[in-house]
Amino acid sequence: MTTRLNRQWRLAARPEGFIKDSDFSWTEEPAPSPSEGELLVRNLYLSLDPTNRGWMNEEATYLPPVGIGDVMRGLTIGVVEQSSDPNFPEGSHVQGLLGWQEYAISKGAGLTKLPENPAIPLPAYFAVFGHIGMTAYFGLLDIGKPKAGETLVVSAAGGATGSLVGQIGKIKGCRVVGIAGGEAKCRWLTDELGFDAAIDYKAGSVLEGLKKHCPDGVDVYFENVGGEILDAVLSVINLKARISLCGLISQYNAKEKVPGPYNFANILVRRARIEGFIVLDYAPRAQEAFADLGKWLAEGRLKYRVDLVEGLDQAPRALNKLFEGSNQGKLVVKI
Amino acid sequence: MTTRLNRQWRLAARPEGFIKDSDFSWTEEPAPSPSEGELLVRNLYLSLDPTNRGWMNEEATYLPPVGIGDVMRGLTIGVVEQSSDPNFPEGSHVQGLLGWQEYAISKGAGLTKLPENPAIPLPAYFAVFGHIGMTAYFGLLDIGKPKAGETLVVSAAGGATGSLVGQIGKIKGCRVVGIAGGEAKCRWLTDELGFDAAIDYKAGSVLEGLKKHCPDGVDVYFENVGGEILDAVLSVINLKARISLCGLISQYNAKEKVPGPYNFANILVRRARIEGFIVLDYAPRAQEAFADLGKWLAEGRLKYRVDLVEGLDQAPRALNKLFEGSNQGKLVVKI
Repeated sequence: MTTRLNRQWRLAARPEGFIKDSDFSWTEEPAPSPSEGELLVRNLYLSLDPTNRGWMNEEATYLPPVGIGDVMRGLTIGVVEQSSDPNFPEGSHVQGLLGWQEYAISKGAGLTKLPENPAIPLPAYFAVFGHIGMTAYFGLLDIGKPKAGETLVVSAAGGATGSLVGQIGKIKGCRVVGIAGGEAKCRWLTDELGFDAAIDYKAGSVLEGLKKHCPDGVDVYFENVGGEILDAVLSVINLKARISLCGLISQYNAKEKVPGPYNFANILVRRARIEGFIVLDYAPRAQEAFADLGKWLAEGRLKYRVDLVEGLDQAPRALNKLFEGSNQGKLVVKI
Repeated sequence: MTTRLNRQWRLAARPEGFIKDSDFSWTEEPAPSPSEGELLVRNLYLSLDPTNRGWMNEEATYLPPVGIGDVMRGLTIGVVEQSSDPNFPEGSHVQGLLGWQEYAISKGAGLTKLPENPAIPLPAYFAVFGHIGMTAYFGLLDIGKPKAGETLVVSAAGGATGSLVGQIGKIKGCRVVGIAGGEAKCRWLTDELGFDAAIDYKAGSVLEGLKKHCPDGVDVYFENVGGEILDAVLSVINLKARISLCGLISQYNAKEKVPGPYNFANILVRRARIEGFIVLDYAPRAQEAFADLGKWLAEGRLKYRVDLVEGLDQAPRALNKLFEGSNQGKLVVKI
């Protein structure tokens, strides 16, 4: 056991803007041994999410910042290798914040045992039956409260969350317009996922696209991005519009304070509502989401895509893909 | 009849920043004569409100802009001088958007007949039993949803709306902290209206004041101002905070696009909610507010102050007082 190495990424510096190689240090140390009541988990997959970038900054977000020198925080799926806990038997698969490393010790708190279902590949727990699926499901239905016939716009629509949000919106009877970067992503949204329209923010004016594709205005906006895209949407929201604030990826890399939307006053004029949420708050209701998502997946009404990156050593560079928008679906590292 | 003159303020130019004399033109024309089915109202009082400034701009707000050359839109209380409508008999008092002028013709639409109650002076219908009272009541209770024991912060707390909001918050069992300009206003809030604390934004850092007077953070924020004050409050909001967006007076005079709050991302991190509202939407529920407000007023639990300006000719200059913060209570012009 002690001859096995635990390869780890540790935060070496607080990044400014995009992540540089020097922001992380690669360490190799003997794999840890669990004490009484602890588990040893070997991580198999690491989820890369926009929120990871915020954890690297000095300011606390909804979680404290990762300390300099600490193993980077991250959500993983792993297999239990040593355990005396009957809730997590050896050989079972678990998901938790076990970090950017091969081996982790856990006392079971915050750990979820995954069902052993050969029909569901492990990365699907990141893409649908986990934080992403819950984010899309509760962020849209609980915060956005779309009604059939309303117009739903979703930004970062080609991403893991946005692509689910749009599909759930269609299932609920909305007109769905996605904003995404690049022709390929936009085609995927309309041709494969059933979005009514897609606006390529790299190809032209988002505002013009919204005016064209949302002739009745926007009732619900699922926001992942912020910045100019939020401003464009705010200028076409309807009375009593609801904005589900899931992320602000456009500003996570910012080196200076970023102003809020210039069209902020439209929240007042249009009597709109903006509400932020964090998926952690919905943990007690997870099964509610998974039941619906599983049914829709089985019925072929919901599709997802995993962008699998090979090798833990690729993690820091791969995270930048989220901010370039170059990932194709849920970004996952195979450790 | 025809010898009587109707003195009027007409919008002559779209103001930039504060209102200048040249933005308005004073006209005198024969008082109009009502046709069949119309009323003639002689205006007695004109309500001056921050929202008036927005109506002068070229961009539509929740109402279309006032046209250049048109009589300025404004809420008045008047007496019916000629009428064949039994709903509005001659001699009765009415309230409506009858404009910055002495005489107005109305078909009764949008007009409210005021109860003839000698215990209630007419300006009280602007200060409590009208749009201001409803704004405070519904904006706080329906949008902010304060719970006993929570901390409520209100900006422009020395103004007509803010001073009511804070008092209603006290009635509902909140810790109430007001933000106002100047020592006199702040003393009025704490010594006469029962606010727990007041922060003088002209005397020091609002953020430091908030940290001092809101040791448990801020649960509900009633926003009249925007800008730096909104940013300061956003930095101390609690999880699941509710921000009732009533006004953004700091930017109504702006000559260029104003950015939204720099701490916008805290809405996400703290899972907060910002919701805009316009009192017009609550018109059907007016009596609900007036019943409670009347009861509290009779019990001595609610106080208000009217800042009465003599003479219609003073209206344009007087409106600037709202943006300087130099008014003492509800700003009303006695025509």
